[in-house]
Amino acid sequence: MNDLKLIKHCLIISYDGTHFYGYQRQVKNNVDKRTIQSELEKALLRLYSIPISALSSGRTDAGVHARVQVVGFRLPHTHLDRYSLERLALALNAVLPLEIRVQKVLRMPDSFHVIKDVKKKTYIYFVNNGFSQKPWLRNYAWHLRLPIDWEKVRMAAKTLEGRHDFKSFCAANSSAKTTVRTIFEARCERVEIGQFLDCGPQMYAIRLTGSGFLKQMVRTIAGTLIQLGQNKLTQAQFEAILAANDRKKAGLTAPAHGLWLWDIQY
Amino acid sequence: MNDLKLIKHCLIISYDGTHFYGYQRQVKNNVDKRTIQSELEKALLRLYSIPISALSSGRTDAGVHARVQVVGFRLPHTHLDRYSLERLALALNAVLPLEIRVQKVLRMPDSFHVIKDVKKKTYIYFVNNGFSQKPWLRNYAWHLRLPIDWEKVRMAAKTLEGRHDFKSFCAANSSAKTTVRTIFEARCERVEIGQFLDCGPQMYAIRLTGSGFLKQMVRTIAGTLIQLGQNKLTQAQFEAILAANDRKKAGLTAPAHGLWLWDIQY
Repeated sequence: MNDLKLIKHCLIISYDGTHFYGYQRQVKNNVDKRTIQSELEKALLRLYSIPISALSSGRTDAGVHARVQVVGFRLPHTHLDRYSLERLALALNAVLPLEIRVQKVLRMPDSFHVIKDVKKKTYIYFVNNGFSQKPWLRNYAWHLRLPIDWEKVRMAAKTLEGRHDFKSFCAANSSAKTTVRTIFEARCERVEIGQFLDCGPQMYAIRLTGSGFLKQMVRTIAGTLIQLGQNKLTQAQFEAILAANDRKKAGLTAPAHGLWLWDIQY
Repeated sequence: MNDLKLIKHCLIISYDGTHFYGYQRQVKNNVDKRTIQSELEKALLRLYSIPISALSSGRTDAGVHARVQVVGFRLPHTHLDRYSLERLALALNAVLPLEIRVQKVLRMPDSFHVIKDVKKKTYIYFVNNGFSQKPWLRNYAWHLRLPIDWEKVRMAAKTLEGRHDFKSFCAANSSAKTTVRTIFEARCERVEIGQFLDCGPQMYAIRLTGSGFLKQMVRTIAGTLIQLGQNKLTQAQFEAILAANDRKKAGLTAPAHGLWLWDIQY
């Protein structure tokens, strides 16, 4: 088995994170918690009868969703013939829970790295603002009943664009070497729900595209921006929080269920 | 208490039917099953400390959703002051599960009847047609991977318009006195999902507006129309099913989770 060649592949997947402990495998007291990674690895084991690890472009927290997530894995060349790429997507969907769907399987060059090769990532934080949330959106957007000044939120979000030290918006237990990140674009806009699943209250999206994001960074930015939109913070105070490089200065961390990993560019 | 005056009200509600045994209260072996009605009546009891029954414009089956449902209830005039109409909506939402949301509470004239006064009802059956369903739509639309001839479905749906005996599309255990109903409009169209919760596969809606609907009528019509779109039935066979007045001739009953009570006109 010394000359076993491992061929790189990746999965393009979507998931509903509601009932998972996040992407990354977690074993506690000998119990494998229900994570996206553990479900994917169980499915790959079932199809190929060998352990195959499934590393994503980045972790997502418990309750966070992914419109798009990219997952790298390697197959021994001896196992390539078992499924064509399209058949593999179907076979995985047949054994995975309905909360995780494989959109596509791709064969990748040897040089591909699922984490290091990421050029840009986009996260969206959805806020459903109005009297009564539609029940079918309850796990996918943060519902806030009282009015928010969205123009203030939009203007404050703009000031996040560029290269900054985001230490104030980073979870205290992060293991990141540096807290400097670049946000290419920060937008806040009203979005249409479409004819399907239409919505009484209005839906707003806080959309951040950056080189990479720290632990809980998007949720802390979203929570702080919302406090500003509720007139609990001024724009000057918001800028002071960013400049402080001190987690204790930041506002609240918005709940996980409004957050979506929206897009990844390689 | 002989001169207790009961004042008519109604609730405009939405619900996600996934984890309910339908609208109507069901007691089996002394156990009150989890239904929309039982949750509403529990909430009203909690707020007013008296039993109040909550009758809807019509039942929905287990797993069926309501974008709009109208529920009638009566309050003794002695209890009117406890909440204003807007406060009552808030108080109900505070005690109801998140799967049921009150959009509005209205005071109604004495002559109002929540069932008999319905003029038109619209149901939509959603089909998500394409490779891999988005996980967050799994409880709200029927996923069918292989291509469907939607133009055929649209044309066949049109032939349902008018006054017909829909016995072929009525559940065998229905207690309806007559199986004649009028369908004012039957449409089949592609719908946009919108920016929020966008969707790889395409979403189609089979939309029926009628004077009233028999038990499982929309699901049986949708299932039979889909079989036609899959070329398992011809248009002539479809018309023969409608003419046969025989439930055994109909096609399959589409699963409950794609069905939505969409609109009600009084």
